[in-house]
Amino acid sequence: MLGRQHQSFNYGTAAPGYGSAPNYGQAPGYGYGGQPARHHSHRGPPPGADPQLWTWFSSVDADRSGSISATELQAALVNGDWSNFDLDTVKMLMSIFDTDRSGTIGFNEFAGLWKYISDWQGVFRHFDVDRSGSIDGHELANALRSFGYNLTPQILSLLEQKYATPVSTGYGPPPGITFDRFVRACVVVKTLSESFQRMDTDRDGWITINYEQFMNIVLSAP
Amino acid sequence: MLGRQHQSFNYGTAAPGYGSAPNYGQAPGYGYGGQPARHHSHRGPPPGADPQLWTWFSSVDADRSGSISATELQAALVNGDWSNFDLDTVKMLMSIFDTDRSGTIGFNEFAGLWKYISDWQGVFRHFDVDRSGSIDGHELANALRSFGYNLTPQILSLLEQKYATPVSTGYGPPPGITFDRFVRACVVVKTLSESFQRMDTDRDGWITINYEQFMNIVLSAP
Ligand SMILES: [Zn+2]
Ligand SMILES: [Zn+2]
Ligand SMILES: [Zn+2]
Ligand SMILES: [Zn+2]
Ligand SMILES: [Zn+2]
Ligand SMILES: [Zn+2]
Repeated sequence: MLGRQHQSFNYGTAAPGYGSAPNYGQAPGYGYGGQPARHHSHRGPPPGADPQLWTWFSSVDADRSGSISATELQAALVNGDWSNFDLDTVKMLMSIFDTDRSGTIGFNEFAGLWKYISDWQGVFRHFDVDRSGSIDGHELANALRSFGYNLTPQILSLLEQKYATPVSTGYGPPPGITFDRFVRACVVVKTLSESFQRMDTDRDGWITINYEQFMNIVLSAP
Repeated sequence: MLGRQHQSFNYGTAAPGYGSAPNYGQAPGYGYGGQPARHHSHRGPPPGADPQLWTWFSSVDADRSGSISATELQAALVNGDWSNFDLDTVKMLMSIFDTDRSGTIGFNEFAGLWKYISDWQGVFRHFDVDRSGSIDGHELANALRSFGYNLTPQILSLLEQKYATPVSTGYGPPPGITFDRFVRACVVVKTLSESFQRMDTDRDGWITINYEQFMNIVLSAP
């Protein structure tokens, strides 16, 4: 910041109160470790486990290995229109909650994942004001504004185009953004904004980056 | 470019000969128009149509509307392991080949799409040297190098993590990048590199951009 001649740039920060986005997980960054999946076979819940959470964990852990793979998670997670979550969204969830980088979600990690999805479901229902089961452009703009992101109409339009499910001909669900892609869009905006902000040390809204840094930032976002 | 003190930066350009990536389509940019899908019902092929192409087009056009929706395209396109193409890859293909921005692929547009997929299938088979049916990190690095992209190990590793299908526990296909995600990864590298290059008018490998430009570039890539 060089002084008064620079306007300090507002990137948006999660606003307090209802409208704020769920906690994005404590794991730093995005990406997988290279370790193979570790499997510990369990016959029952760990002592003190929440019975409801254990029941859902067990139903997702289809092969009874004691931990949840990306494949098992994708098979278990469905949107309001019964479509499965995208692989990219499933990988994003794994990377946030597989904190020990085993390649799978253990029961302790699952508790965080379950709360995260529940919280986002609340946010989704709150902003789906027309109860269509999907988020349209206006609803997306309202959600991101309430999270503190003041995006231009052009950026909002790009986001809507990128994350919406295209109109299916004839019958079918209304076009718009399904739950999984809504969560991914919001995390992408947050991740990219934070990466930009980290580079913009003087907070004037401009950064100077080289090709390697640019590719690194973009490919690190979900 | 200020002169000799700047080293001109090599972004990579599609190399001539076999290793080069298929033509990325003539449509400018990425993204959908806002128009609703137009439907013209056809009972038969247009005069002079390739019978084989017409047969495949008709089988993809499940509702016999005379044009192919994103939903129809996604249902028709499968990888070597029988998984369906990701919605993001299907939307990318639609945005390249729906040149009249009708929201659907007509028969004339389909000819280009069909050739594009066939060409990429040849590239995929060429670089899948271990015949695993998927592209691993080394195979991806070889493919991108042959297209002229000299990416660092870190960027290649990020690409592999982002586009690979995670290991499924127990049996299942080997981990790696399936066909649809391989094509998307290559188009993403090309799109981002070209966007960076367009901003880097003096070709020294550095750009100065603001938040709006940054978000615009990133969200315009598939
Ligand atoms: Zn400044
Ligand atoms: Zn399991
Ligand atoms: Zn809605
Ligand atoms: Zn220069
Ligand atoms: Zn159709
Ligand atoms: Zn292979």
